[in-house]
Amino acid sequence: MAVPNDAQYPPELSPEEEQYLLTNVKDWSIAHGLAVRPAPTFVSQERDPSGVLATTAPVTLFPSIFPRSCFEQGLAIQKAYNELYSAIARDEEWIKGIVEELAPIDDFVEKLWNVHLEVKKEGYVQDLSLGLFRSDYMVHANTDSDKTSLGIRQVEFNTIASSFGGLSSKVSSMHRHLLAINAYPSSSSSIITENALRQSKATSSLAKGLAAAHSAYGPSRNKHPLCVLFVVQDPERNVFDQRHLEYAVLEESGVRSFRLPFHRILSDSKVDSDRNLLYTPPSLPSMTFEVTTIYFRAGYSPDDHPRPEDWDARRHLERSRAIKCPSILTQLAGCKKVQQVLATPHSPHLKRFLLDESVASHVLETFAPIYSLDESKAGREAQKLARHPDSAARYVLKPQREGGGNNIYRKAIPDFLEKTPQKNWPAYILMEMIEPPPLRNAILRNGEVQKGGVIGELGVYGVCLWRNGSGETSKGEILENWEAGYLLRTKGDQSEEGGVAAGFGAVDSCCLVDS
Amino acid sequence: MAVPNDAQYPPELSPEEEQYLLTNVKDWSIAHGLAVRPAPTFVSQERDPSGVLATTAPVTLFPSIFPRSCFEQGLAIQKAYNELYSAIARDEEWIKGIVEELAPIDDFVEKLWNVHLEVKKEGYVQDLSLGLFRSDYMVHANTDSDKTSLGIRQVEFNTIASSFGGLSSKVSSMHRHLLAINAYPSSSSSIITENALRQSKATSSLAKGLAAAHSAYGPSRNKHPLCVLFVVQDPERNVFDQRHLEYAVLEESGVRSFRLPFHRILSDSKVDSDRNLLYTPPSLPSMTFEVTTIYFRAGYSPDDHPRPEDWDARRHLERSRAIKCPSILTQLAGCKKVQQVLATPHSPHLKRFLLDESVASHVLETFAPIYSLDESKAGREAQKLARHPDSAARYVLKPQREGGGNNIYRKAIPDFLEKTPQKNWPAYILMEMIEPPPLRNAILRNGEVQKGGVIGELGVYGVCLWRNGSGETSKGEILENWEAGYLLRTKGDQSEEGGVAAGFGAVDSCCLVDS
Repeated sequence: MAVPNDAQYPPELSPEEEQYLLTNVKDWSIAHGLAVRPAPTFVSQERDPSGVLATTAPVTLFPSIFPRSCFEQGLAIQKAYNELYSAIARDEEWIKGIVEELAPIDDFVEKLWNVHLEVKKEGYVQDLSLGLFRSDYMVHANTDSDKTSLGIRQVEFNTIASSFGGLSSKVSSMHRHLLAINAYPSSSSSIITENALRQSKATSSLAKGLAAAHSAYGPSRNKHPLCVLFVVQDPERNVFDQRHLEYAVLEESGVRSFRLPFHRILSDSKVDSDRNLLYTPPSLPSMTFEVTTIYFRAGYSPDDHPRPEDWDARRHLERSRAIKCPSILTQLAGCKKVQQVLATPHSPHLKRFLLDESVASHVLETFAPIYSLDESKAGREAQKLARHPDSAARYVLKPQREGGGNNIYRKAIPDFLEKTPQKNWPAYILMEMIEPPPLRNAILRNGEVQKGGVIGELGVYGVCLWRNGSGETSKGEILENWEAGYLLRTKGDQSEEGGVAAGFGAVDSCCLVDS
Repeated sequence: MAVPNDAQYPPELSPEEEQYLLTNVKDWSIAHGLAVRPAPTFVSQERDPSGVLATTAPVTLFPSIFPRSCFEQGLAIQKAYNELYSAIARDEEWIKGIVEELAPIDDFVEKLWNVHLEVKKEGYVQDLSLGLFRSDYMVHANTDSDKTSLGIRQVEFNTIASSFGGLSSKVSSMHRHLLAINAYPSSSSSIITENALRQSKATSSLAKGLAAAHSAYGPSRNKHPLCVLFVVQDPERNVFDQRHLEYAVLEESGVRSFRLPFHRILSDSKVDSDRNLLYTPPSLPSMTFEVTTIYFRAGYSPDDHPRPEDWDARRHLERSRAIKCPSILTQLAGCKKVQQVLATPHSPHLKRFLLDESVASHVLETFAPIYSLDESKAGREAQKLARHPDSAARYVLKPQREGGGNNIYRKAIPDFLEKTPQKNWPAYILMEMIEPPPLRNAILRNGEVQKGGVIGELGVYGVCLWRNGSGETSKGEILENWEAGYLLRTKGDQSEEGGVAAGFGAVDSCCLVDS
């Protein structure tokens, strides 16, 4: 890649340089809330029963090298992606087709769909939907032609609970600070420059998205004070990431918000006869807020719905007049199956949603080929590839469900399929591995520094607010659409998972180089 | 005091209210760096060998009630105090008299003085001095006349390492945030109002003081890059308080600073033949910075000077051309003995330093009567008071040395004096106890909430930059003089010490009420 040939990156540090860098990372991070609650393996609950300890979020000590053209490509395409997923979310008929394929093998998808159907039967009362999206990419060295060219390839598209917007803004600020205080040695001074570092604006930009929905909701018909609800997991180790959004939406837009643990939805909120969602904070039993916008930072996995009443809770929110971020249809649009259908070579679907051919072709360039493992002709071809270790080595097998953590990589795929009943294979997609250029960095996690080869994943945030349109007559319209900053998530190249909160990765920022 | 008669303050909280308040305090504090490294009794070094854990600084859950007139009195008098202590620091002859009294019983003072004498012999090369002061007060209910009136009485005046400026700005922001999110119940809504809360500007204002000195130093004659040095203890649990100043001086004024542990002064810096202080960071061995300003956050107690070479280090800094914050004379001006001499009834000293009678009388109003325990007539009177439990009950016995933690209170005084050789009595001063009105609050420390009676101590910061003037012909002049924000430090009324870092108090902000 574009690191000057004779430069080692990141540079080797003397013990004194490393100590200076580390001390500054440890102090700056806590002074600015680039933090997480410690993992139970690091600090047990008995040691800190009231949960007042915090530690530096897993971070890279250096900003990772990232090709400038790829970075710009990712940011430039985000508005098209917002448009694409908003269009998918508005196409219930099309989503129905996807769901019908998945329902037999994924009861989480089926249950979500059923909630949608019930609410549809009663009639939706809120025509607006908000998406705070994040499209994740890796740099891919394309060796199809004689000359290797670099481009981005999409890993996944998140339509619910897109995280790390709060911390991403902080980590890019931190890397800039470290540059300003000479914590990066002079041997890297031609690479790490002010111009090369990119500040993420995600916190403020995502908060503006919430504020835009809040404002579009309009006034309360019953003169209630208005609020945004963050529906969250409880406990939440990554709470500061979310808090930075809460603080920004209050300080920059004057919008009140509350955190509502998923399991308390039914006890703390009610839907009135006009289907306004009314929230009474347990701490303010005499006050009733009308909820303009529900921002889901939970609800993306079956784990958030262990009890039947958790599905009642989901229905309760969906049928309310609050703007959902995301609605169930928007959440379903984020199924990996959708990504697969769009990215299957020669698929007709993309042009259904993106009418402008030039826009569609730019989006298409960011797809990695994805195959279903169904009984179609292409599916059977894919099965063949997946069952043989040599060919499987270029692929990753991913469950259709959200969340990460269960991917099967390369040569492990054939064995895995062997042990999985063939009727369940369509629950997975087969995706061509993205082959990122080799990189190195150092990650601070739980006080330990790990150095070595890393893989970076660029997440680009997008805000989209749209009107769904009433049924047959209208396909709706987009009211707001913007690119909303970025996240670089970096993991050791040993691990093939990228969830920082799950303990495998670190938040990072981009050090752009010309490729 | 001025809490409306029928209001209980702070208000009682329901369990839900308390949980909401506490959760928000815990999260906001970490998200904004209102933090300390945990005490070893809370997290042992073995549990966190690399020191990455942090916790909420000890804070009050509510802003403490403080009489508006007393608050305004404290802020208004600060410029006069800056002028007073700057004048004392410029009066070497007068300080010499103080030192001569103390030297036989306080070898720390003696050693400081000797450093000054050695440098004086060689000749000082820097005529500018910087003070980042903090004057500490308690509210005193004056019952001399029929009507009880409230005023402030000075506890001490700090001329070195005045701490908590960084955290005080944060805690006042936090209390404002808690008000904005309805974390204070409606029963307190007539007391805790936006208008009643006072934002401390200490971080920014103290940082501007450092920047003013940095700028007044002028350019490097040898074209070295310039920096400010924070001379610190290592390790330092209260590091974020200091870091906030470092970040502010960099971000708001573009001034570079480095942290230099006291024990590394001689290894990492040198004084050149022009007596410029040159600092080579261990992490940047090829770079040499010229130090414009030395900001001491260490060096105020014998504990920082355990080895003979620590005194060499102090001399090394004092003889350099860097502006000292504080110089040794300024540090000596902060002796409790000075406070005592000024505050001894009918003392002639105050008017020596404050020529404007009206200014001097306002300062005088803030003094609590203080007596020496020497063999003068007044001293013998004071000894008599101190040796009898009934009369001693109105007094506190304080060592002349800086730092707190060794005060003897009220009825414990006679026993203590009994055990102390009489020749050592002059090492202490006897001060009339300040009798603050009873208050209540709740303090969060190490995850535990303690509720009960509290005592608040208002600290007012001051910045003063002055020219000492050359010897006989000039008394120097003040170049910059401003009040620089405030700190409220609140401790349980059980403990009679006020050092938050020592584990006895909490940072707080003022909720003003009309008295």
